[in-house]
Amino acid sequence: MNQPALQHFTDVAECTPEQLLALLDLADQIAADPEAVTNSLSGRLLVNLFYEPSTRTRLSFEVAGKRLGMLVANVSATGSSVEKGETLDDTFHTIQAMAPDCVVLRHPDPGTAKHLANLAADSVHVINAGDGIAAHPSQALLDAMTLRQALGDFAGIRLVMAGDIRHSRVARSSIRLLTTLGVEEIRICGPRQFQPTAERLAELGPRVSVFEQLEDAVDGANAIMMLRIQKERISGIEIPGADEYHQRWGLRAEHLEMAGPNCVVLHPGPMNRGVEIASEVADGPRSLIRRQVRNGLYARMALLKYLMES
Amino acid sequence: MNQPALQHFTDVAECTPEQLLALLDLADQIAADPEAVTNSLSGRLLVNLFYEPSTRTRLSFEVAGKRLGMLVANVSATGSSVEKGETLDDTFHTIQAMAPDCVVLRHPDPGTAKHLANLAADSVHVINAGDGIAAHPSQALLDAMTLRQALGDFAGIRLVMAGDIRHSRVARSSIRLLTTLGVEEIRICGPRQFQPTAERLAELGPRVSVFEQLEDAVDGANAIMMLRIQKERISGIEIPGADEYHQRWGLRAEHLEMAGPNCVVLHPGPMNRGVEIASEVADGPRSLIRRQVRNGLYARMALLKYLMES
Amino acid sequence: MNQPALQHFTDVAECTPEQLLALLDLADQIAADPEAVTNSLSGRLLVNLFYEPSTRTRLSFEVAGKRLGMLVANVSATGSSVEKGETLDDTFHTIQAMAPDCVVLRHPDPGTAKHLANLAADSVHVINAGDGIAAHPSQALLDAMTLRQALGDFAGIRLVMAGDIRHSRVARSSIRLLTTLGVEEIRICGPRQFQPTAERLAELGPRVSVFEQLEDAVDGANAIMMLRIQKERISGIEIPGADEYHQRWGLRAEHLEMAGPNCVVLHPGPMNRGVEIASEVADGPRSLIRRQVRNGLYARMALLKYLMES
Repeated sequence: MNQPALQHFTDVAECTPEQLLALLDLADQIAADPEAVTNSLSGRLLVNLFYEPSTRTRLSFEVAGKRLGMLVANVSATGSSVEKGETLDDTFHTIQAMAPDCVVLRHPDPGTAKHLANLAADSVHVINAGDGIAAHPSQALLDAMTLRQALGDFAGIRLVMAGDIRHSRVARSSIRLLTTLGVEEIRICGPRQFQPTAERLAELGPRVSVFEQLEDAVDGANAIMMLRIQKERISGIEIPGADEYHQRWGLRAEHLEMAGPNCVVLHPGPMNRGVEIASEVADGPRSLIRRQVRNGLYARMALLKYLMES
Repeated sequence: MNQPALQHFTDVAECTPEQLLALLDLADQIAADPEAVTNSLSGRLLVNLFYEPSTRTRLSFEVAGKRLGMLVANVSATGSSVEKGETLDDTFHTIQAMAPDCVVLRHPDPGTAKHLANLAADSVHVINAGDGIAAHPSQALLDAMTLRQALGDFAGIRLVMAGDIRHSRVARSSIRLLTTLGVEEIRICGPRQFQPTAERLAELGPRVSVFEQLEDAVDGANAIMMLRIQKERISGIEIPGADEYHQRWGLRAEHLEMAGPNCVVLHPGPMNRGVEIASEVADGPRSLIRRQVRNGLYARMALLKYLMES
Repeated sequence: MNQPALQHFTDVAECTPEQLLALLDLADQIAADPEAVTNSLSGRLLVNLFYEPSTRTRLSFEVAGKRLGMLVANVSATGSSVEKGETLDDTFHTIQAMAPDCVVLRHPDPGTAKHLANLAADSVHVINAGDGIAAHPSQALLDAMTLRQALGDFAGIRLVMAGDIRHSRVARSSIRLLTTLGVEEIRICGPRQFQPTAERLAELGPRVSVFEQLEDAVDGANAIMMLRIQKERISGIEIPGADEYHQRWGLRAEHLEMAGPNCVVLHPGPMNRGVEIASEVADGPRSLIRRQVRNGLYARMALLKYLMES
């Protein structure tokens, strides 16, 4: 690891391409022989600080830490001093005073992870496990890891990203990571109210384009990532009913036939079957959805090692 | 352990008598020298997946796992992706993708444990920690262990099981286990609406009979197991008031005088004192209630070792 | 450690001055070299039994235990058998039957910790992590540790304790501990409805006095401990609005100017900024508030070692 050291991991935009590739290489290496790193961070302390409910991400970081021999403690906003009027900054300083090596944060407000990273002591590494619609960079890592395993070099990836792009931190982080790593093309597709704003789209650069029809978007694609409607993060926007949504925007077997023969399917989970994805696709031979979860464990082990050992 | 290997533990009905006896022997062996097995499952991962509140069972499995050196992570339905519309199967597959060695499940719906065991990868062992009114087999193990310690051979046990039999997964599993192991007699006793159905009773075989009066049931018994009213699992059934219930069906000192002089008392907990059991009995010299909890720890350590090492 | 062994830690009033000083010395020793005690309680079991929400105290005990190599399990009243009607005593006996070495208890009712300590088996150590308005002795330990580090000998400490003294278990335990250790003077200050009763004040002895004005109290003080309004533990008492409270009783920079030049500031947290303390003070150079949290970790490590090794 001859990359410049990375103190925090709050947004893929803060990492160099070299750091991101080093992270992915390390994740692959751990996936190939997970036992080789058992207890390699023995005695280090990881605190999971979660202000939003989470099963997969919290558990993934917890298991990643424990597999590496770390001490892990979970703190959730419920049952916490938040209720007694303490500010987020003070809660963070309190936790930091207990000398953790790493604080993994999930929070409903965008920018919280970067904000707390700026408050962090030199000995503390902050990892963003999702902050509002801003970023979910460890999810982006595992998505990229999974795509590279399936399709090889990023330069040959033509990815459809469909669903609620606008409110998805996964979309935001994955687009950033994949374009940084040189993906050939990202085709965004979804109801107009879920598409990125024109301004945002301009920022994303020429390799990202919008398709109005899912049928058009999948033509010639070799990867499709479906996204959930983020009901908990939107309000004041009309959402189509589940059936209507599925007819119009749900990924079904017929779409896979239109796509290339080796086209793979991803979903960050949790899935709403029969809404954004049909069960025949989610459980079909091209689905990498469970592989994503497994890779998530390895990607987070890699991330913890990279931050704490470089 | 020359028994056929056991992959899952979802219902005692799925185990051979030899397997059940091997489990009980192993539990006794661990009880005699718990330190001998410390860290013997070091580095294995146990996930407690609880869809119902629980103190004793969740804690018992957590401590059992940790005593054996396992990594333990708790997942509860509250604060989970259940709220985001994920199906139980998908939640299970997600957890399974993180490569646990064992998933301990509690769920309100009968049959859930067996259902998930059928979805499990070869490397994953599913343990039922209570699924609706269906089964609670690790509780049955600790009950049998406790009875055998106190009374010796199963062939000499004459057990009264009183209270809400119909809605009790503990009763269901314990009756099955004890009849499999050759208990002499099980006398069921409780309000009519809490007795097993006639059909169910026929299945239970000739060693299980129903008594209308607690006074009659305890006569000549050498063990009495009291059960709680499962308020959280019944609806539309009239439940007597606490005082009325206690007068009619509560175990009191006078009942112990009617029973044999060495008659012991069990209760799976949590107890409702003054309802199904009087404090003088719960705290009296014949009570094995705390011993049951201690044995529960050893029985679960035995179970984890048996599943993972055989 | 040639002090008489301490079985439980439920109230500083139960400890001799020698025991308290031994605890503080051990805490300082651990603070100087925390790694020296890593895993020194390996394999021991700590159960955090929390009937009230808590971030800092629960996490502090959890991290303290884990740093010492203990197995730690958390039990909270939510999601527990409390809901099924089990008594506190029975829950304690259930947990105790799982052979913990230490039970750390937080409970809303005063006296609960001492009550459960009386039920404890010889092998179990009960630590009070706050019981109603009665006591919070580990907080008192860390406060005394922090004051001694900053000001040297207790005999020279002139401490202002301001805010809701009457309903504060922190105040109760700290006053007891500091007067036992020979603090020179404690000046209590706060709204009349938050001052100790006359009877209570008489018990506290001649070194504790009441000041009506914060301005008068801070004059010549070398330490100021601000306390939060315990909204969750009072009812039927009129509480001033936040702004009014801050004007009258909030600690501001002007008060530090009135106090001695080396006067330090403590707060047990969680803080309500702009109410009992101004941010300029909380974050200023004289604030020891984060040091208190760090010391809390070391004080609790010392406490666990002292109870379990002496």
